[in-house]
Amino acid sequence: MATHIDLNCDLGEGYGPWSLGDPGADDALLAVVSSANVACGFHAGDPAIMAARCATALSRGVAVGAHVGYRDLVGFGRRRLDVPPGVLAAEVAYQVGALQAVARTVGAEVGYVKPHGALYNRVVHDEEQAAAVVAGIAGVDPALAVVGLPGSAVLRHAAGAGLPTVTEAFADRGYLADGTLVPRGREGALVTDPAAAAERAVRLARDGVVVAVDGTLVPVDAASLCVHSDTPGAVPVARAVRAALEAAGVAVRPAAPGPAR
Amino acid sequence: MATHIDLNCDLGEGYGPWSLGDPGADDALLAVVSSANVACGFHAGDPAIMAARCATALSRGVAVGAHVGYRDLVGFGRRRLDVPPGVLAAEVAYQVGALQAVARTVGAEVGYVKPHGALYNRVVHDEEQAAAVVAGIAGVDPALAVVGLPGSAVLRHAAGAGLPTVTEAFADRGYLADGTLVPRGREGALVTDPAAAAERAVRLARDGVVVAVDGTLVPVDAASLCVHSDTPGAVPVARAVRAALEAAGVAVRPAAPGPAR
Amino acid sequence: MATHIDLNCDLGEGYGPWSLGDPGADDALLAVVSSANVACGFHAGDPAIMAARCATALSRGVAVGAHVGYRDLVGFGRRRLDVPPGVLAAEVAYQVGALQAVARTVGAEVGYVKPHGALYNRVVHDEEQAAAVVAGIAGVDPALAVVGLPGSAVLRHAAGAGLPTVTEAFADRGYLADGTLVPRGREGALVTDPAAAAERAVRLARDGVVVAVDGTLVPVDAASLCVHSDTPGAVPVARAVRAALEAAGVAVRPAAPGPAR
Amino acid sequence: MATHIDLNCDLGEGYGPWSLGDPGADDALLAVVSSANVACGFHAGDPAIMAARCATALSRGVAVGAHVGYRDLVGFGRRRLDVPPGVLAAEVAYQVGALQAVARTVGAEVGYVKPHGALYNRVVHDEEQAAAVVAGIAGVDPALAVVGLPGSAVLRHAAGAGLPTVTEAFADRGYLADGTLVPRGREGALVTDPAAAAERAVRLARDGVVVAVDGTLVPVDAASLCVHSDTPGAVPVARAVRAALEAAGVAVRPAAPGPAR
Repeated sequence: MATHIDLNCDLGEGYGPWSLGDPGADDALLAVVSSANVACGFHAGDPAIMAARCATALSRGVAVGAHVGYRDLVGFGRRRLDVPPGVLAAEVAYQVGALQAVARTVGAEVGYVKPHGALYNRVVHDEEQAAAVVAGIAGVDPALAVVGLPGSAVLRHAAGAGLPTVTEAFADRGYLADGTLVPRGREGALVTDPAAAAERAVRLARDGVVVAVDGTLVPVDAASLCVHSDTPGAVPVARAVRAALEAAGVAVRPAAPGPAR
Repeated sequence: MATHIDLNCDLGEGYGPWSLGDPGADDALLAVVSSANVACGFHAGDPAIMAARCATALSRGVAVGAHVGYRDLVGFGRRRLDVPPGVLAAEVAYQVGALQAVARTVGAEVGYVKPHGALYNRVVHDEEQAAAVVAGIAGVDPALAVVGLPGSAVLRHAAGAGLPTVTEAFADRGYLADGTLVPRGREGALVTDPAAAAERAVRLARDGVVVAVDGTLVPVDAASLCVHSDTPGAVPVARAVRAALEAAGVAVRPAAPGPAR
Repeated sequence: MATHIDLNCDLGEGYGPWSLGDPGADDALLAVVSSANVACGFHAGDPAIMAARCATALSRGVAVGAHVGYRDLVGFGRRRLDVPPGVLAAEVAYQVGALQAVARTVGAEVGYVKPHGALYNRVVHDEEQAAAVVAGIAGVDPALAVVGLPGSAVLRHAAGAGLPTVTEAFADRGYLADGTLVPRGREGALVTDPAAAAERAVRLARDGVVVAVDGTLVPVDAASLCVHSDTPGAVPVARAVRAALEAAGVAVRPAAPGPAR
Repeated sequence: MATHIDLNCDLGEGYGPWSLGDPGADDALLAVVSSANVACGFHAGDPAIMAARCATALSRGVAVGAHVGYRDLVGFGRRRLDVPPGVLAAEVAYQVGALQAVARTVGAEVGYVKPHGALYNRVVHDEEQAAAVVAGIAGVDPALAVVGLPGSAVLRHAAGAGLPTVTEAFADRGYLADGTLVPRGREGALVTDPAAAAERAVRLARDGVVVAVDGTLVPVDAASLCVHSDTPGAVPVARAVRAALEAAGVAVRPAAPGPAR
């Protein structure tokens, strides 16, 4: 019976003059979520965009996290990359530090780190890359929280290194009976109806369960709910999720125990 | 009659598998200088190279500085770029923070910031870009020192913002009678003879003067001497400079009063 | 009393997952214009986007041109860059050849070259860069036409090298009495009303004149009219321009005499 | 009993101011080999370097090939990348066309295409990527030859599409008894002794065999021998290989039947 939950969203996913579809979506989402995963320049984002998102997040009381990814701008960090562990740790530290500094110039602080895209998926199971990501974060500041999938290697390594961990679930993604996500492209992968996403969010937050595509009731432990930003209906879904959570008596507030709040 | 001076050098100026000529030069130079200006990924440098240079610098007692440049990898930061001030400040903060974080993963700290190439030359006179560079640095940490040309706009802005400043001179560059450098490409621009560079270094450090190409004795105020790293004879020049300074009773040690030492 | 004119537009100005605002604008514009200036990867564009735009252009009977720019992705090619002439010529050839090859894989051909952004503005007056751009194009194929401002250095050099030239005017930009454009940011710089742009297009095409911001009637020689693609109202403006031209008896068709048609 | 063979080498593997070790190695190698695999800007190479290498190759009668790679500059194209087939075909066409155009500006022509690094290894077995690479090449010009490992998927697809194919072997790499290469990092992977590499080259060229690390005599069908450029001893090895081939009566000349000779 959780009384509060975090609502996180990927933001700043542009580059130079470009955005993913609607250039105004980030601003609308920063009025709804409690945590902003800001892209750090490797898969998306540039210093000016990062500064702008940090400033808006600060003004809205939204926590700032470093959304770190593989160095693959044209592929948007969505392609697996066999980065040697030492290089990956340095790349993660680089991205985290870059965002910390940019955030500081506008008065904000980075509270957590969340891997992006192919790196996010890989550190669920890949022990070597999970350890490298954690080494990069811990080397910068062991007070930074790590956001990831419940049961993932990266959260296990983070906990082992003494870093705070934040489990997350997805209000707008379909689940299989084993608690994993329905792969993108398959039927039921995305929940685009705001009302349906909102209902799932409430059950995830309040009851710790989600109804899988086959009807199974699956227990999911999540301190944070992720809502997507890169789909046309992202803003209405996020608004519906937040409204439903609050109506159900679940407060929306940052999960990361870092310096961001 | 200075009893000590800093010896700084640009390092880590490679990218991925590449180096500027001899891949071993950086290691040799880190045995000679007292301050390492480490490229931060915009004009040169990548996280793995940055981590390696910071680790070696730390093991040799060499101070680490952020060598920040324009975002122009293929042009090596040597081409003027009209970056809007807000963007430039964010880009400087980004680079400084990235190096701070990478340095921290190996136990080192960044003590100062020095602009590179076209940005270095531009902030001598360009008030707007000089102010932007200082804003970026001060926004990250006002304890960071700024290294620049005596009398430059960037040092003036840095002092105005309360940042420590470090003036520098060049042991291996020719000077004009007005105290500015002989432009690259012109006769007398470079001093490649180790003995000549060493003699100039001693006069700069001990007496605060340099003999200009026309024979004029020019007063130069410098807390740090820069030796170049990107020429074939860089290592012998640096070694000769250090040996001559020590033989003349001038100790070589970091100038920046930041957290690096 | 021209009976026909070209209508050109900058397209493919995305990168990886990103677009400039509305991702569907390019497709709508390719139903209206007669020439598509396709970005070649230096200031915008990537091989997959280039292939897609060439394929659509081919299916609509739209001529394909190489929109070549400075190598500055984050700055979208809108910042001056002092590229040495030999490098610039090679960079222009590289971009043109890359588009030629990608176009060929979908059955299309490149008919002309138009510089983009800061490079476009610079080769109006800069003899050295104008000559370099022309050298790069002529070195690839002297049958390629060059699109530029009437009276510009780049068109003069192109003509001198025996390349076909295409003069262009802007239906959606304000003019000064001397025939130059009102600088962006000043009042009257942009004509965003579709009806006004359409009327200007007809006068430019049929009468070879435009009314300047001070009311002066200015003669403008233009074989092609450029309509912009990077503003919210781009599509309605382009549609209004084409409809008005056709209503006035001015046929819209490609200007470049290259292999594209 | 071959009376001639091609000697190919990867060249132009720098970027902006950088090189892989000795900046003069390319020039020395262009005096020895008969085919230059020129990097096209995705894993290494930039337009100015490409133009310079093409000009030198032309002056020495060396054939020019497009060395196409994954888009991964910092990783030097040595990391697997799951590029969708349509994107990969466009990326290959882009690189080939870019080199064709740059070559043309100096009077040279591209005769063949050879994949680089991780892409080279992947298209030995990966049918989808092999087909995509061939589609990209064939879409540009079906007269371009494809260089690859004997028996590789890419050569099979190339032959199926009607493209000329060139098999290659390695004079300076160790072989296993099954005809594959000893993986880098294992003992016997590299043959660094010039005399040993030269002897292997003669047996490969004249007899079509190589002695594997376990002593087995392995038949290898190769119309071209690759000598490496990125090791300190590359130049002496290449010189020894050429001298030994000529002493054995095997002429060194380009293999690709394209327009390059």
